[in-house]
Amino acid sequence: MSLLFKNLRIHQIFGANTDVGKTVLTSALVRASAVAGHSVYYLKPRTVPTDDAFVNAVASHIRSCATKPDMFSHMYVETAGGVHSPTLSGTTQLDAYRPLFLPTVLIGDSRLGGISSTIASYEAMMLRGYIVDAVLLFRDEYYRNWEYLSPYFAERGVPVVSVDPPPERQSDPKADASLTEHYYQDIVPDNGEGAIFDVIKHLDSCHTRRLEELDSMPRRTLDSIWWPFVQHGHVKREADVNIIDSAWGDFFSVYNGKRSPSPSDNSILEPQFDGSASWWTQAIGHAHPSLALAAARAAGRYGHVMFPEASHLPALKLAERLIQDGPGRGWASRAFFSDDGSTGMEVAIKMALRAFATREAGQLGGARRKDLGILGLKGSYHGDTIGAMDACEEGVYTCEWHDAKGYWFDPPTVSIRKGKTVVALPPAIAAETEDGQSDIETVSLSWTYNIDERLKSPLASVYRNYIERTLQKLKDGNGPTIAALILEPLVMGAGGMIFVDPLFQRVLIDVVRGPSAATRSSSEWSGLPIIFDEVFIGLYRLGLQTSSTLLGTTPDISVNAKILTGGLVPLAVTLASDSIYRAFLSDDKVDALLHGHSYTAYPVGCEVAHETLDILDKLTTSESWRVAREKWKVPEPEKVSETSVWSFWDPEFVHVVSRMDHVAEVMAFGTVLSIKIKDESAGYQSHSARALLESIKTAVQSEALSPAPGGSPFGIHYRTLGNVAYFMLSLNTPPSVVRAVEERVWAVLEKRH
Amino acid sequence: MSLLFKNLRIHQIFGANTDVGKTVLTSALVRASAVAGHSVYYLKPRTVPTDDAFVNAVASHIRSCATKPDMFSHMYVETAGGVHSPTLSGTTQLDAYRPLFLPTVLIGDSRLGGISSTIASYEAMMLRGYIVDAVLLFRDEYYRNWEYLSPYFAERGVPVVSVDPPPERQSDPKADASLTEHYYQDIVPDNGEGAIFDVIKHLDSCHTRRLEELDSMPRRTLDSIWWPFVQHGHVKREADVNIIDSAWGDFFSVYNGKRSPSPSDNSILEPQFDGSASWWTQAIGHAHPSLALAAARAAGRYGHVMFPEASHLPALKLAERLIQDGPGRGWASRAFFSDDGSTGMEVAIKMALRAFATREAGQLGGARRKDLGILGLKGSYHGDTIGAMDACEEGVYTCEWHDAKGYWFDPPTVSIRKGKTVVALPPAIAAETEDGQSDIETVSLSWTYNIDERLKSPLASVYRNYIERTLQKLKDGNGPTIAALILEPLVMGAGGMIFVDPLFQRVLIDVVRGPSAATRSSSEWSGLPIIFDEVFIGLYRLGLQTSSTLLGTTPDISVNAKILTGGLVPLAVTLASDSIYRAFLSDDKVDALLHGHSYTAYPVGCEVAHETLDILDKLTTSESWRVAREKWKVPEPEKVSETSVWSFWDPEFVHVVSRMDHVAEVMAFGTVLSIKIKDESAGYQSHSARALLESIKTAVQSEALSPAPGGSPFGIHYRTLGNVAYFMLSLNTPPSVVRAVEERVWAVLEKRH
Repeated sequence: MSLLFKNLRIHQIFGANTDVGKTVLTSALVRASAVAGHSVYYLKPRTVPTDDAFVNAVASHIRSCATKPDMFSHMYVETAGGVHSPTLSGTTQLDAYRPLFLPTVLIGDSRLGGISSTIASYEAMMLRGYIVDAVLLFRDEYYRNWEYLSPYFAERGVPVVSVDPPPERQSDPKADASLTEHYYQDIVPDNGEGAIFDVIKHLDSCHTRRLEELDSMPRRTLDSIWWPFVQHGHVKREADVNIIDSAWGDFFSVYNGKRSPSPSDNSILEPQFDGSASWWTQAIGHAHPSLALAAARAAGRYGHVMFPEASHLPALKLAERLIQDGPGRGWASRAFFSDDGSTGMEVAIKMALRAFATREAGQLGGARRKDLGILGLKGSYHGDTIGAMDACEEGVYTCEWHDAKGYWFDPPTVSIRKGKTVVALPPAIAAETEDGQSDIETVSLSWTYNIDERLKSPLASVYRNYIERTLQKLKDGNGPTIAALILEPLVMGAGGMIFVDPLFQRVLIDVVRGPSAATRSSSEWSGLPIIFDEVFIGLYRLGLQTSSTLLGTTPDISVNAKILTGGLVPLAVTLASDSIYRAFLSDDKVDALLHGHSYTAYPVGCEVAHETLDILDKLTTSESWRVAREKWKVPEPEKVSETSVWSFWDPEFVHVVSRMDHVAEVMAFGTVLSIKIKDESAGYQSHSARALLESIKTAVQSEALSPAPGGSPFGIHYRTLGNVAYFMLSLNTPPSVVRAVEERVWAVLEKRH
Repeated sequence: MSLLFKNLRIHQIFGANTDVGKTVLTSALVRASAVAGHSVYYLKPRTVPTDDAFVNAVASHIRSCATKPDMFSHMYVETAGGVHSPTLSGTTQLDAYRPLFLPTVLIGDSRLGGISSTIASYEAMMLRGYIVDAVLLFRDEYYRNWEYLSPYFAERGVPVVSVDPPPERQSDPKADASLTEHYYQDIVPDNGEGAIFDVIKHLDSCHTRRLEELDSMPRRTLDSIWWPFVQHGHVKREADVNIIDSAWGDFFSVYNGKRSPSPSDNSILEPQFDGSASWWTQAIGHAHPSLALAAARAAGRYGHVMFPEASHLPALKLAERLIQDGPGRGWASRAFFSDDGSTGMEVAIKMALRAFATREAGQLGGARRKDLGILGLKGSYHGDTIGAMDACEEGVYTCEWHDAKGYWFDPPTVSIRKGKTVVALPPAIAAETEDGQSDIETVSLSWTYNIDERLKSPLASVYRNYIERTLQKLKDGNGPTIAALILEPLVMGAGGMIFVDPLFQRVLIDVVRGPSAATRSSSEWSGLPIIFDEVFIGLYRLGLQTSSTLLGTTPDISVNAKILTGGLVPLAVTLASDSIYRAFLSDDKVDALLHGHSYTAYPVGCEVAHETLDILDKLTTSESWRVAREKWKVPEPEKVSETSVWSFWDPEFVHVVSRMDHVAEVMAFGTVLSIKIKDESAGYQSHSARALLESIKTAVQSEALSPAPGGSPFGIHYRTLGNVAYFMLSLNTPPSVVRAVEERVWAVLEKRH
């Protein structure tokens, strides 16, 4: 992972092409550092067949040079060939070195065509986020490339320094050696003056500035940033601010501030596992080059172009894909784009209310139209804009204007307790079962998610009767007219990783749709419009593209966001069936869905989403997915479909944790692991989970547990919700990393025990 | 502008470097096209000192070859040097050719280092959105670059074809010519078979596919897209869908469908001026390479990283810049990021409500806290999420759940009528003036915006008395407790480009703040928290960074979006003063501002915003801005500040239009031109403006009026709001384009007259 040391200033040397003088100029830099009185290291790594091994080897070598905190040293890491020259593993230099995130000196090309290759190389570096501190090239008096490149790069904040080219090679080795030595003495004179020394000083100052900047960031952040969802009264110390210098794959590279692990280690960055998948958005690892290129591609072709009554390829192709091969398959006919899950849900709510009000138009006058309510589950969360909040019951995520509009069932839940799968019924439902038990042990997790089987069970009838009676009471009461059913299928994330019994959700849907449910067309809503809020779970967060396959039914409206753009930029899509769409069709502008955001369907977001879906298609049919699924496979007699519950987390690990005394329950589903700690004061204000697992965040000093790229020990950044600690993987987290995270979690829980 | 013809398949040939065989392989392609029986054009443009002249010359030449709709021809445009080799104007090839947006054959580099330069060149092309249809390179048996490049590009959907290299040059010219001829016959045999012919066929199929795709897009769009703010019942014909193939600067390149301007012109793309600045977002032209690179840079360094309790450079530096040198200067202490203007306003509203409720805590119990209202102006619009809508009165942009919470003044407005500046008073205010007149002619536009002067005028006292009395009535009545004042300063955009008398807004603010207004600290709210919704006008849409300088006062909370990211990706920022921030500070998590979106402060958005602000800094102090300002300068005696009203639109043009019979009024301010057409049925449903100006959209066939890059005539894409037609420029629209737009608008209005 990203390397940065207080007393070791490292620069990697990339060449704009082969034969541009990389070795000569690197030697000059090495000499200059030495003349300037620094101890200096030179490294020319050889590539090896795998990228991980390469990064680990280079990092380990660099680390061994960085153990002298008492003196300031320089290091130059010379890469091979041009920026995109292939390594033995098949990736190119730029991608192979990226995990180390070393600042760069780019050796420009001084020959004919060298302006082009220098700029193109620079842009390829930018696409990978590299810091380029200087451009260095030979002063070829014929082509004079430096004359063009100097102002070009000055405009981009990068100094260009040109140096006399070396003498022509002599056939006599002795003469050649002498001439070469003269050359070096000319460009790196002993008096320590000249262009090369200016470069050295500049690189030193870049290093110092970066350190100072990192050091100032916690204070400056505390002084100017207003964080989402954070009580700033709780985060007052600089050490509490997580300074993310860069990110790669599953890891942040974070500033360790004054928390240097040991006196002999002057490293100031450390890897940190992004254990919440950056608020559930991360799908294929941070800084994926394909996504960066997709963003650039659409930015370069369109910028943003306005969308109403218009069309462009990225939006159109994304819409078609989501409808035909995505979560909308089989029921959706239209895609409406917006910016985030919350706006996507506001759109969904507006769609549902209108569809309901239009069909019931005879009865619903102006006043009644305002008084429409939502049917949902307790613990729901659909985003923070006020309309999305109003679709949830009063709770902690609310504000002065919150007005809970609707009715919310207390749902049964699924969890693993002491190695057993348990369906926990709320008292009102438990009271209606034969034995009045609130906790029902089921055969297995996979059986619990086998809806077809369970629909025949007595519990299904209990659910049905309970729901029907409750809805009848609602109709008879003075509450609002219920106009839509909104569900977060399978799990209510923000509400506390509540895994709802899928049978309950399915029965609820069936009851709401009424007797015609079985025969209805999937493009026609019946009973109430049904919205699936799949912002969190959609697109394989739980290993499933959509919950529809598992629940055995489709919604009338659904919302996707988060993973949709692979964890890079915001975008949401609200899919709707034809019957919903038709409710807005008329000859009157006022009947239209008068909702839109300036950047609706912006090409960058749509293109990045498209690229993400391409990558997901490959990933979800990959060998590592097959292996992970295999582990959770149920024994033969218990046949379940391919879409069954499974997880990247090891079943054995999950069961072991679930048996710990201070663990109330556990769930693992797809990329999600949630651990509920026993705690008297549950709820949003609980700190017990946080207190228990705080230590996981800090780096674990054990080389044996070090699968972060670069071989360093790593901390885990994760989030808690009340007394639930949850961990999330991206869809391509390497199994070795998953195992390492499991080991740490287990070790901390065990210690506490 | 972008060139695409039905019967002329054009490819530009870019080289991954100089001397890679561009000319040889282009010749081979030309030969192959000829052997395959097509008429074929070869073009090797010379660069000229300005990019516009270059593009115009190339486009004009290409156009002259495209006048034979009866036969299918090929054209190859060979560029010079590598992709980034400089042109005479100083830009590089990639940027110089970009306006033409020709599909590309990239000639790969078959030499040592050629893998790197080929990939880097490809990525540089992607950053500018280019379509790369094929990679062609020599089959060098020693380096065998094609072996690496073929699968590499196959993964990216681009075929790689390798061709035997040419023979070595002979000293004898005759022998050389003969050998060369043999070489060409080998790689382009007369039998029409072999790799080069496969390339030709592939290029033909790419061309055909692109045409078919464009042709299918209208239908597919009508079948799958649900547009924002559009009554789909009104847009049923394929011809009504604006298919945007690409964009550059101020222009879309749109598909002209079956609307070919003349039988001899088989062009199928035409330039269209983006006259609404793509819903008011566009600031520095579409597809600006610096913004694409900024997006790529942040994507490559971070992807997205979660923000609560964390920090990264793009977000931190943007927050500091907005607070210290941006719209927050002098009053704001905190930046809260969200995704769009609407979410930014929801955040602002939550901030204001809490700040008010906290200070008035003694009196405000739970129920009262819900019953807080907003003070605003009729015609306000703050976005489409339901909370933002609830801050506006009932109107057309509403939905079932809309619940207008507050009171909205009918404001006086400013406009230019018959060449005179007029302040129009609503009846209730007019009744309070000495002469009861509703229309007050003022000295000039600049005087009208000179608040300091006008605060001493009798009208200021009329405003003050009226506002004070109204607020007192509100307090005495049964309405909600007013908890915040929300203003769109200077102009209410979505409400119909209503330019509010700035004196009224200033007096309203002063009255709301009460007697302590003059002495209050700018970081302490008094009376009510005051929100400036500067989503539309902020960051120079009106030529001013913020309205604060003109209104002579600062808000307690402000929201910026749209231009913030230069018209590329969504991002909003809510700035708040210290007193607002402190209302959420406590030791209890529940008191925090519990609002956030998954991609809050995503690095790509923040980095793009930063780059935009850099560019704006240069632009707003540029010569063209000085010249535009100069035109609107008032005569000496009438001294106004540097921040006075001015516009990119020519004052003479504005005055002439304002004097037309069927024009009710006009306003020009910064980049905005709004023309209100006389119409009985005003309001959102009005079509009169649209009907009148419909013809502006279509291409105007007059070469004399052709400043679009590429010299083609262009249409204007603009929007209407009721009976108002408005036109918007970006901040760097060339004066020649502004003049051309003015000429067209004038011509259409004149014709109608």
